[in-house]
Amino acid sequence: MRTSLCDRFGIELPIFGFTPSEHVAAAISRAGGMGVLGCVRFNDAAELDAVLDWMDEHTDGKPYGVDVVMPAKIPAEGNQADLGKLVPEGHRAFVERVLADLGVPPLDDGGAGRDGVLGWLHSVARSQVDVALKHPIKLIANALGSPPADVIAQAHAAGVPVAALAGKAEHAARHVDNGVDIVVAQGYEAGGHTGEIASMVLVPEIVDAVGERAPVLAAGGIGSGRQAAAALALGASGVWMGSFWLATEEYLQTMTGSGAIQRALVAASSSDTVRSRIYTGKPARLLRTRWTEAWAAPDAPEPLPMPLQNLLVSPAHNRMHAVHDPSLVSMPVGQIVGRMDRVRGVAEVIAELVGGYEEALSRLDKTR
Amino acid sequence: MRTSLCDRFGIELPIFGFTPSEHVAAAISRAGGMGVLGCVRFNDAAELDAVLDWMDEHTDGKPYGVDVVMPAKIPAEGNQADLGKLVPEGHRAFVERVLADLGVPPLDDGGAGRDGVLGWLHSVARSQVDVALKHPIKLIANALGSPPADVIAQAHAAGVPVAALAGKAEHAARHVDNGVDIVVAQGYEAGGHTGEIASMVLVPEIVDAVGERAPVLAAGGIGSGRQAAAALALGASGVWMGSFWLATEEYLQTMTGSGAIQRALVAASSSDTVRSRIYTGKPARLLRTRWTEAWAAPDAPEPLPMPLQNLLVSPAHNRMHAVHDPSLVSMPVGQIVGRMDRVRGVAEVIAELVGGYEEALSRLDKTR
Repeated sequence: MRTSLCDRFGIELPIFGFTPSEHVAAAISRAGGMGVLGCVRFNDAAELDAVLDWMDEHTDGKPYGVDVVMPAKIPAEGNQADLGKLVPEGHRAFVERVLADLGVPPLDDGGAGRDGVLGWLHSVARSQVDVALKHPIKLIANALGSPPADVIAQAHAAGVPVAALAGKAEHAARHVDNGVDIVVAQGYEAGGHTGEIASMVLVPEIVDAVGERAPVLAAGGIGSGRQAAAALALGASGVWMGSFWLATEEYLQTMTGSGAIQRALVAASSSDTVRSRIYTGKPARLLRTRWTEAWAAPDAPEPLPMPLQNLLVSPAHNRMHAVHDPSLVSMPVGQIVGRMDRVRGVAEVIAELVGGYEEALSRLDKTR
Repeated sequence: MRTSLCDRFGIELPIFGFTPSEHVAAAISRAGGMGVLGCVRFNDAAELDAVLDWMDEHTDGKPYGVDVVMPAKIPAEGNQADLGKLVPEGHRAFVERVLADLGVPPLDDGGAGRDGVLGWLHSVARSQVDVALKHPIKLIANALGSPPADVIAQAHAAGVPVAALAGKAEHAARHVDNGVDIVVAQGYEAGGHTGEIASMVLVPEIVDAVGERAPVLAAGGIGSGRQAAAALALGASGVWMGSFWLATEEYLQTMTGSGAIQRALVAASSSDTVRSRIYTGKPARLLRTRWTEAWAAPDAPEPLPMPLQNLLVSPAHNRMHAVHDPSLVSMPVGQIVGRMDRVRGVAEVIAELVGGYEEALSRLDKTR
């Protein structure tokens, strides 16, 4: 499973693994792929810096990248408290009522814990880019389209290529016009922020739109070698996987908790996701839970725009996290969740993928 | 592009082409695939019989099949007039107001023209099966799950295998338990009745669920050789294409009109579809038009259950058809519509598909 991206990035396999976990990202890189660490969880650039130090020590000199979230349309700026004032009281009351209905108590410390995510503010994302470029990163990806021109220029000046996610061919073309080097074609079935066009249609459309100018990674629905073979048959030069790492042993090393998330993911079928604005304010695919169902009820308010919606729901996520109930986790995940049938090691995931890829090609050989 | 289905059906290519047009179906079979004629448009079995006589004369002895629509949950039975009484006045008034807003006049003959579709009534579909089995058909497909057990037995007694569409792995397993011989895995991106799981995830799930007992055809998003290669990489034994034939020369021979539909399809991008209940009462993917937008407005009523919704909207479809306006056609179509960039002959579609398939396999060879 070798493509032009292997030589370009000095990787053995064109498998790009997006993950918020440094343990997963490092393991992907060590296994021959390209681990891409999601930065959006780091509101504090110093915290990111320390984690990237850890990455530098645990990747055996193999390439890795980072992923920031810079929306093309700049969201409201401000600190946690100022932005919090923009959240309507009715929304807060709805959240409180739902949590009460679901039997989720307040936290012992009165509601502290992890803050809402501010990583999609340009100010925060820029500080992440500044910090990341002090490390030997080999890729900066933006999970929401083209980064601003000066950020692309900053990366290029440091010799770091830029990738951007696209859910439509016209967006992909715009990204490349803006200087983006690699396009991640993110299909409908993907976890997190996603559009409406499914990978089978989207990947060749984006390859045709930009393929001569930029390699395309296929994202959405990929968790096996058969799917990687399908992605490359569609014209992609590699795959971008995110959801599948959530059910790995390495992910559990980063994210403290009872494993309720993994129990929920392993139990879920491909039908158990919803595409909804309730996590960030933009459409994102999430695991279907009693929490997402409450937001789908007729009495639920419209989700707020980014970044307010996540500020609203983050304390609720913390409270649900504390009850260790698989039916109440809050987790972006793609339809591939149906294939996540147990917790594996990252190296095992990649070995299975490579083996399945070879089998798929052998099957195709027999059709000639 | 040969699989076990080629020997089993005596076809050169594992390309199954579903179409309401006998001209398209015959051309697919003549070109080496399996033309599958959709019967739902024939309210009168005698009309179907005559068309199958035509098929017998124009397929050069090559295999062809038919497709009926028998919902697993039997819809209300009755004739056009009796069922019409079940349509609420408020729904009729909404349709009249929308057509007036869209500038669509009544028909000169006062509203006659094609009746609403009754082919999804079991009584009508059974009469279609009876007629079809008098012809040398090689496949009966059901577009909505397993046909009733006695219909499967009737087909098997005549030596005709039965195919059924499935949008979930559990449905596919149930179909095979019921005696279905071939499963069509219909992904979210497909036109017409479709579920929520995209092909990239659905096809391998269904192959894993039933592949040892029944071959699987991939449906949804397929219009090129790259996509056919992806489908076979995912484990499918062939492809099932429907939408792509709508923009063929042969389709225009069956469906009289000004070509407004083809102009609309050729102009549409992959973003220009909606999944809605407004065509049949069950979720189906349609071309997005001013008509579908009117039904998506906040003041639109909930669509009626099958078969009432199509009885309600069929006269409106006739009226829109008469104005020859590409922005007002009513047409089920999949996301692959974005690739339908001109009207082609059926043989050209198939030749391009085979060529693209070989190219995709050659590209994959280079990844070893």
